[in-house]
Amino acid sequence: MNTIYHLVPKEEVRARVRRLQKALRREGVEAALFVQKMDVFYLTGTLQRSYIFVPAAGEPVHLIKKDVARGARESGIDRKVAIRSRKEVPGHIRRSYGKLPRTLGLEADVLPVREWRVWEDLFPGSRLVDASALLMGLRSVKSPYEIAVMARAGKVAREVYEYGRKILREGMTEIAFAGEMMAKAFALGHEGLLRMRSLNDESYSWHILSGKSGGIVSYINAPMGGLGLSPAFPVGASRKPIRAREPIMVDFGICLRGYQVDETRMFCIGTMPKRYRDLYRAIIRVQHAILEATRPGIRGKDLFEIGLETAEREGISDIYLGPPGNKVSFVGHGIGLEINDPPFIAKRDETPLSEGMTFALEPKLVLKDEAAIGIEDTVVVTRDGIRRLTPMRQSIYHAAG
Amino acid sequence: MNTIYHLVPKEEVRARVRRLQKALRREGVEAALFVQKMDVFYLTGTLQRSYIFVPAAGEPVHLIKKDVARGARESGIDRKVAIRSRKEVPGHIRRSYGKLPRTLGLEADVLPVREWRVWEDLFPGSRLVDASALLMGLRSVKSPYEIAVMARAGKVAREVYEYGRKILREGMTEIAFAGEMMAKAFALGHEGLLRMRSLNDESYSWHILSGKSGGIVSYINAPMGGLGLSPAFPVGASRKPIRAREPIMVDFGICLRGYQVDETRMFCIGTMPKRYRDLYRAIIRVQHAILEATRPGIRGKDLFEIGLETAEREGISDIYLGPPGNKVSFVGHGIGLEINDPPFIAKRDETPLSEGMTFALEPKLVLKDEAAIGIEDTVVVTRDGIRRLTPMRQSIYHAAG
Repeated sequence: MNTIYHLVPKEEVRARVRRLQKALRREGVEAALFVQKMDVFYLTGTLQRSYIFVPAAGEPVHLIKKDVARGARESGIDRKVAIRSRKEVPGHIRRSYGKLPRTLGLEADVLPVREWRVWEDLFPGSRLVDASALLMGLRSVKSPYEIAVMARAGKVAREVYEYGRKILREGMTEIAFAGEMMAKAFALGHEGLLRMRSLNDESYSWHILSGKSGGIVSYINAPMGGLGLSPAFPVGASRKPIRAREPIMVDFGICLRGYQVDETRMFCIGTMPKRYRDLYRAIIRVQHAILEATRPGIRGKDLFEIGLETAEREGISDIYLGPPGNKVSFVGHGIGLEINDPPFIAKRDETPLSEGMTFALEPKLVLKDEAAIGIEDTVVVTRDGIRRLTPMRQSIYHAAG
Repeated sequence: MNTIYHLVPKEEVRARVRRLQKALRREGVEAALFVQKMDVFYLTGTLQRSYIFVPAAGEPVHLIKKDVARGARESGIDRKVAIRSRKEVPGHIRRSYGKLPRTLGLEADVLPVREWRVWEDLFPGSRLVDASALLMGLRSVKSPYEIAVMARAGKVAREVYEYGRKILREGMTEIAFAGEMMAKAFALGHEGLLRMRSLNDESYSWHILSGKSGGIVSYINAPMGGLGLSPAFPVGASRKPIRAREPIMVDFGICLRGYQVDETRMFCIGTMPKRYRDLYRAIIRVQHAILEATRPGIRGKDLFEIGLETAEREGISDIYLGPPGNKVSFVGHGIGLEINDPPFIAKRDETPLSEGMTFALEPKLVLKDEAAIGIEDTVVVTRDGIRRLTPMRQSIYHAAG
């Protein structure tokens, strides 16, 4: 079934592991063991249940639990062993590495305390340290393979948005419209979930906020959240019917081979009132100002500042990044295997951008109890600027409705 | 927007908190603080970012961070305070409770170790203990309100399945068919995600396995997983085109107001070959045998054993719950706000069932490299048996195709 199920190139995985080993040596961490699924996927090429042990010097070992045959076929790691339980991990490491490491990095940002204690018990002579920031730093810089997959996801997004424009009708509920877009997205290869590295946050594609839905804030760290379907799903598309001439914000991420892109466009049935069109043009200028300044070396906080200044110049500061008193302090987020990969284009992000970093830049305006207006694209930092990975037009998507 | 966004009844939330307080007293835990979103939702009625402090004796406090207005409106807890950061939690607890508890329960099964340490630092004089099993035990027994919501979700499932039968055509890919079902499900109120309490497992509705896809095992703890879309999504619907006369397993969970039901039926375009029909009848008999024995007091392991014995009598042991060498040791899982709520109808589950417990019972057969045949329904334990919450017919869903 190779034509319908693409493996991650094995050389891609090996290059990632080599970069990790270099980083471990630089940071003075003797070895690391990755347990969380997207970290394991990044370093092996498979999501089959497994662990990957990577020493700063020496050969990595991929310990595969279930399904062993699929995991072995998909893995780009040379040394693979089948295990039935994680209790077998230390023994295999000892055999392969010659000893147990004195310092072992694990993912303290996501491993539940109960799970962490199990690993402490399995490595009583090792000091467990947090290796998540180190790996996330590597993951933030994408390879040409990863950028190509994301660009492909961007093309799916473009098709889904054009389809949405064609089928949108007055009176459709936000959630029914979202469902039609999901059906199209599935047919074009969208994998359905948007993964997020978080205990309590979750992400999904169907952020369709029409008219006053766009003016509703929510628990998520975003300028607005929409009404959602119930207190248990209080974000995203709701049962509100979509009306003509309302500004409709469509923020609909796409995932392909594990890699996500995120993008937002404004839709309207008929003609959008001039005031909203003017605001849309203004927020596009904010996005362009930030993207024009983006290049290797600049920091997220510098770009965030440029956004603020441009919003000020455009006279939209009061509604920029949220209503007064409810503003967020970021305008973009890294994206890849998880929708909150580093870097963050945020007030406090000091990390200088590097070539190959990808992020979704989403300046947005919130008119409380009225509407949201915004734009979002996923871009990759190039040697001298950026390249857009969501190649869709920025003009309003007009539906005949 | 009340008619399109139903709040959890406040008396419902208060009754849950009272049950929790009784359990805290019984277990000798002085107080608990819940942080994880579904636990907080269960005990307050809102998913807005917040924490809930519940002492064994005294008044609970709901500490709401974002969005404060929405959280306050949705919460069934009387004492509510707005906070800007979790650093303010101990101060508010001291003011309300008169002191800081010596023993404080938190969710050690899901809280990342880094997060756990933050709470340790915030409560230096308190011993932090794991309160997750205690809460999950309460959550496993559903109230009449919860059962009514789940029964409503079951009716949505029934409509989605009948719709699927009508639109299924030969040559559609599994994922395209899944997308059409998702669109219908959204329009009927499905909230789109199936939440799961796990670091590495994830759940979603689109488990459509046609013909040999049903014979593919995967990393998930299930008899089969399907091919999926890529190594990053190696479970569920794939790009395989659906053919006439293939057995098609449709396992498509539905979520309403946060509550899930899970159900599986067999579909076929045209007539399913007799061998598969016979196997389907046999596995339905296994399901009925288990359900006939289900009543308060019986344990998950007893029901699991009845399933094994019935499969033996039916002559299907070799393919029951997985292919030889790859069998799972459960036949059902609790379900509610998360798809792995207790109880488990599993080889080792010793918990006696109680009235009000809900679970999805899913005996399945795997013909390696060939097909999967199975049935699944969500049921609630009643005083003298069970009631099915997925009220759909068990006969094969024939598509004209």
